[in-house]
Amino acid sequence: MTDDIDKILHEHRGGKLRTDLARPLTTRDDLSIAYTPGVAQVCRAIAADESLAADYTWTSHLVAVVTDGTSVLGLGDIGPKAAMPVMEGKCVLFKRFGGIDAVPICLDTTDPDAIVETVRRLAPSFGGINLEDISAPRCFDIEARLEAELDIPVMHDDQHGTAVVVMAALRNALRLRDRKLGDIRIVVMGAGAAGVAVTKMLLAAGATDITVTDSRGIIHSGRSNLNPVKEELAVITNPDKRSGDVGEALRGADVLVGLSGARLDEASVAAMNPNAVVFALSNPEPEVSPRLAAKYASVVATGRSDMPNQINNVLAFPGIFAGALAARSRDITPAMKLAAADAIAACVGDDLSADYIVPSALDPRVAPAVTVAVEAAANASRG
Amino acid sequence: MTDDIDKILHEHRGGKLRTDLARPLTTRDDLSIAYTPGVAQVCRAIAADESLAADYTWTSHLVAVVTDGTSVLGLGDIGPKAAMPVMEGKCVLFKRFGGIDAVPICLDTTDPDAIVETVRRLAPSFGGINLEDISAPRCFDIEARLEAELDIPVMHDDQHGTAVVVMAALRNALRLRDRKLGDIRIVVMGAGAAGVAVTKMLLAAGATDITVTDSRGIIHSGRSNLNPVKEELAVITNPDKRSGDVGEALRGADVLVGLSGARLDEASVAAMNPNAVVFALSNPEPEVSPRLAAKYASVVATGRSDMPNQINNVLAFPGIFAGALAARSRDITPAMKLAAADAIAACVGDDLSADYIVPSALDPRVAPAVTVAVEAAANASRG
Repeated sequence: MTDDIDKILHEHRGGKLRTDLARPLTTRDDLSIAYTPGVAQVCRAIAADESLAADYTWTSHLVAVVTDGTSVLGLGDIGPKAAMPVMEGKCVLFKRFGGIDAVPICLDTTDPDAIVETVRRLAPSFGGINLEDISAPRCFDIEARLEAELDIPVMHDDQHGTAVVVMAALRNALRLRDRKLGDIRIVVMGAGAAGVAVTKMLLAAGATDITVTDSRGIIHSGRSNLNPVKEELAVITNPDKRSGDVGEALRGADVLVGLSGARLDEASVAAMNPNAVVFALSNPEPEVSPRLAAKYASVVATGRSDMPNQINNVLAFPGIFAGALAARSRDITPAMKLAAADAIAACVGDDLSADYIVPSALDPRVAPAVTVAVEAAANASRG
Repeated sequence: MTDDIDKILHEHRGGKLRTDLARPLTTRDDLSIAYTPGVAQVCRAIAADESLAADYTWTSHLVAVVTDGTSVLGLGDIGPKAAMPVMEGKCVLFKRFGGIDAVPICLDTTDPDAIVETVRRLAPSFGGINLEDISAPRCFDIEARLEAELDIPVMHDDQHGTAVVVMAALRNALRLRDRKLGDIRIVVMGAGAAGVAVTKMLLAAGATDITVTDSRGIIHSGRSNLNPVKEELAVITNPDKRSGDVGEALRGADVLVGLSGARLDEASVAAMNPNAVVFALSNPEPEVSPRLAAKYASVVATGRSDMPNQINNVLAFPGIFAGALAARSRDITPAMKLAAADAIAACVGDDLSADYIVPSALDPRVAPAVTVAVEAAANASRG
């Protein structure tokens, strides 16, 4: 069905998003309250105390989904206009799953300074900023600068949404195998936005042996021309100082997290340890076909909706922002992301099996559970 | 009722605007069409032909309501956060009356270059730009530059929305008195955004004798320290080279359009010609009380919803943008604005009386009539 281009275009005609009134506007009195002269009283109250903007405007439940169109799905740099259908879709998911209003902002600039400056100027209009489909390594610096400068939560979902759901899935996969994060060898294939964030989150959660690969093979400190982000990865990963290709990295590994867009040969997967865990998350083509992976791995996950164990960011971002906004948090901290991962993992509960390590993308329990967990973590960190 | 601050704040709690889904999102298939993998087909189509963005995204019916918070209602420069309740209200009116989706963008900058640059970067996300509550004379340059640079319609509503409704009201007032625009003496009191736009629109429609006053009196070419906009007014208005205060301007005038925020004394109004037309549009306090004005004028209008003949921009902007978007016009031309004014005036029809020269702000016939007229004018000019 999803290959039927005519049906797909038909379902996108006129776009997927709308605005609506929170309350009916019918009478002259309604008009004089919602607009002049009544609204002036609300403006005066906020001018006197800016914190009241969260009470009396929609910003308290509003996220901007901001992109420059440089790294959209698997399509690459397609520009802001062609990126809009994805950003609208993201906003629809925010509303549908998190009850959060979201507005797509597709920017006609790819300059990191201009992006930071523009989002800073827009910030009074929103309660949170979801950065989306901005190419690596530019995305790291853009996110870091906005996090530092803005007093509202900022999150690049391609990094952290993915990391949170991978973390949740891996927690359950390890529970199934009775293994500990600190005792296993993990290979993260791909050092883009998602690969870097997954690596850092796994390290923060207690992983001790992660090897990261990119298109040139294992990232290690002996390699030349590493960008600053990969230089950091070379320091904080690869404790055994491995070098070579991804096949070399996978020899004797327990877990593969594929976030690369590249393909693996069977021999590389076959060289992993018995009972391996393979997350082949590239879309639409996984790094290795799940059928092939299952010959060697006991738990397999993909990014695809037509296979078991779909690692889908929609499990994370609606609840993460809903929780951060509910807590009026200025940041989305590592503790909040870990709380989100644990909440997602917990939704699986006693139904855990090799084919059910993460909840369905449509599971209505997930976003509320994530919201509550993230809000609690935000409040706890304020002490 | 509108003075009850608790009730007003209550009605603004959580804001007045929401997003919503254009179509339900229930099944796994829905998800795979609205988001990955299906949405990629729509992105590819737009990347190949950017004009398709108008067909397959919400931008074709989406307006940004952009402010820097420098001239909000009668409150002045209250900043972007305190301006948000007005911008949300404006977006609610766009939806309620024009069926147009609108999103408030309150900018954290008051620098004209930065405003132009920011809106230019945002432009791919929207189908039109409604500039709002940006102080004069900055607003003129900002609007002109954006009109020139963007390929989507841009309109500063404080200028042109007001001018269109004043034009409509004046057409009907003159019809009632059987007078022609070219045969009367008009005084425009106030040379801010609205005063300048009203003056230019009346001249474009055939007025020949307009005198404009500001806080220092009549604008004439002998005055020093005129800003460029007032310098232009000194050239195109005041054919009799009058000088002096507003009382001097009003002596023997047929029409007063008050857009000043200042007050008039009774003697000035008394010095107008018999059967004068007085539009005292300052809010909440008109330049002269309607009761007092009625002693000397045979037609009186204000900006207030609790008096007859309310000059309310909501009669114009929803239909103007709806018409421009329907025609996929790149501009909002003088012809489109005149068409809007005529359409508003025509809604009064045979019910015309001294107390009914403009339709009610809630009249459901107005926005559709304006939409049709503006779309037709846009298409005609492409001819």
